[in-house]
Amino acid sequence: MNELAIVEYLRKLAARANAARVVRGAPARPAPGKRDRRTVSGAQAASGLILGIGDDCAVVRPRAGEDLLFKSDQIVEDIHFRRGIAPAIVGQRALARALSDIAAMGGEPRLCLVSLTVPQDLGERFIRAFYRGLLAEARRTGTVLAGGDLAHAEKIYCDVCILGAVPKGQALRRDGARPGDAIFVSGSLGKPWDRRIEPRLELGRSLLGKATACMDISDGLALDLHRLCVASHVAAHVTAVPIHRGATLDRALHGGEDYELLFTMPASMRPPKGVMRIGTVVPAKHGKEGEVFFQGEPLPPRGYDHFQQPLQ
Amino acid sequence: MNELAIVEYLRKLAARANAARVVRGAPARPAPGKRDRRTVSGAQAASGLILGIGDDCAVVRPRAGEDLLFKSDQIVEDIHFRRGIAPAIVGQRALARALSDIAAMGGEPRLCLVSLTVPQDLGERFIRAFYRGLLAEARRTGTVLAGGDLAHAEKIYCDVCILGAVPKGQALRRDGARPGDAIFVSGSLGKPWDRRIEPRLELGRSLLGKATACMDISDGLALDLHRLCVASHVAAHVTAVPIHRGATLDRALHGGEDYELLFTMPASMRPPKGVMRIGTVVPAKHGKEGEVFFQGEPLPPRGYDHFQQPLQ
Repeated sequence: MNELAIVEYLRKLAARANAARVVRGAPARPAPGKRDRRTVSGAQAASGLILGIGDDCAVVRPRAGEDLLFKSDQIVEDIHFRRGIAPAIVGQRALARALSDIAAMGGEPRLCLVSLTVPQDLGERFIRAFYRGLLAEARRTGTVLAGGDLAHAEKIYCDVCILGAVPKGQALRRDGARPGDAIFVSGSLGKPWDRRIEPRLELGRSLLGKATACMDISDGLALDLHRLCVASHVAAHVTAVPIHRGATLDRALHGGEDYELLFTMPASMRPPKGVMRIGTVVPAKHGKEGEVFFQGEPLPPRGYDHFQQPLQ
Repeated sequence: MNELAIVEYLRKLAARANAARVVRGAPARPAPGKRDRRTVSGAQAASGLILGIGDDCAVVRPRAGEDLLFKSDQIVEDIHFRRGIAPAIVGQRALARALSDIAAMGGEPRLCLVSLTVPQDLGERFIRAFYRGLLAEARRTGTVLAGGDLAHAEKIYCDVCILGAVPKGQALRRDGARPGDAIFVSGSLGKPWDRRIEPRLELGRSLLGKATACMDISDGLALDLHRLCVASHVAAHVTAVPIHRGATLDRALHGGEDYELLFTMPASMRPPKGVMRIGTVVPAKHGKEGEVFFQGEPLPPRGYDHFQQPLQ
């Protein structure tokens, strides 16, 4: 596919995924004999997209009373995954990782941009399967594909940039945990890489105004809880961990790529259904902010680190 | 650098570049003995950023009366450039390419996210020089670094995602050129890769409400003018082209990476200073939308194509 063909291809993909024609927002007379493409579909109208793929930028109209969430997330072959994994799963995960960050702030996703490089020998078949997985996830979560780019390179590389929204001033941050708060996770830890990620969008939204701190677990519980505690200037006692079937305790504590939510709430508050309490926030000793104890012993903030240990 | 060190490093870089401390937007009590970091610098306040690097997403508060511009742009070693180019130039160009898209819509840049992978052997020295170039450009243009990621890979890869703003409903699009309009470019064409890019932000803004269509020339005049004409359902006659010193006519017409603005205006309107008129928009013959003629001869829409010819 040459570059023009790719733009056309992305445009068609997006149109199909968004169940609508390419969006034309600002007034422009339709050309003689052309249908007027200014109609906006439900998904696109909800996303605020008023000009989609095919111009220099996507144009988005923000809604009153909302803050926007802005994040990008990259995956690289042989660092985050090996080529044996199904392309549709790679595509699903590429988007779902970014969606998980939106969930962690209590937001809802609106638009995404997808930059992809693929080796020449994988070609079109890989690209189609990758986008099939990515766009199914986009449809499922109401995320509109607003742009993207494709290039050739020796390795598969994908960067997804996402724009989400949250009621003004209500984004869930990492820095509000207080001593006495209960600590929860949304699911089992230590999952393998070759599966779909389930971004916890509904749960995240249900925590608005309730959770004192929230983040997603992308680099392992030990490291991520440490980060949450550093941001909040507190320490934590962990008493129990839900271990994924077949995983080791070490993987549940220090493995990456779980994409469950980790959050704190006042202990007196009723937690949402289906989450598991794993411990309690405690005051940090002087100079020991971020300290995490597991069953009474200090838990080192060791997790998945891209600069040290490539995943299997 | 491990991942935590990188976040710390990016945070410091951003803080220095934005000439302010890390932004804390929503009310959160400062920890005992900690200074309150909620102060927002001028650049950050102007960008709308209320929560910067260090949480799951950046949080942005949009202004009333504005549309947002959303775009990502990737560069890949051995596709867009070779390793011999100074890392600071690679960083400058990585951001400036995306800024050029904002300029092409008549917008002003606000925030950017930078995903970077670097080979292990280049290491920290490359990263620092790359960011020095990128952040100098960010400062110069009022763009705030709001997040990013670093990973190792065999090749240098960078994806920059940018969020900009434009007065509501006024974004400059590709689809409004009308027969009789004059066609302009903002500078000479056929430039080599190993130089800074000058994103035409001021010119772009000055064209709001005046240009009937606008885009930036990233893949060569022939291909990009063809695209503008396709979008506008018109054709074009080009009579003259400003050739960059030392470049061939072929490179000026079909080379990529110029990042000048290409725009159309009613011929009766006075053009901004410093631009050059290159031709006139004409009606498209039936089924020939997008046709471009150069000095009376059809000009094939051949340009820089990532899937066909890697740059020198």
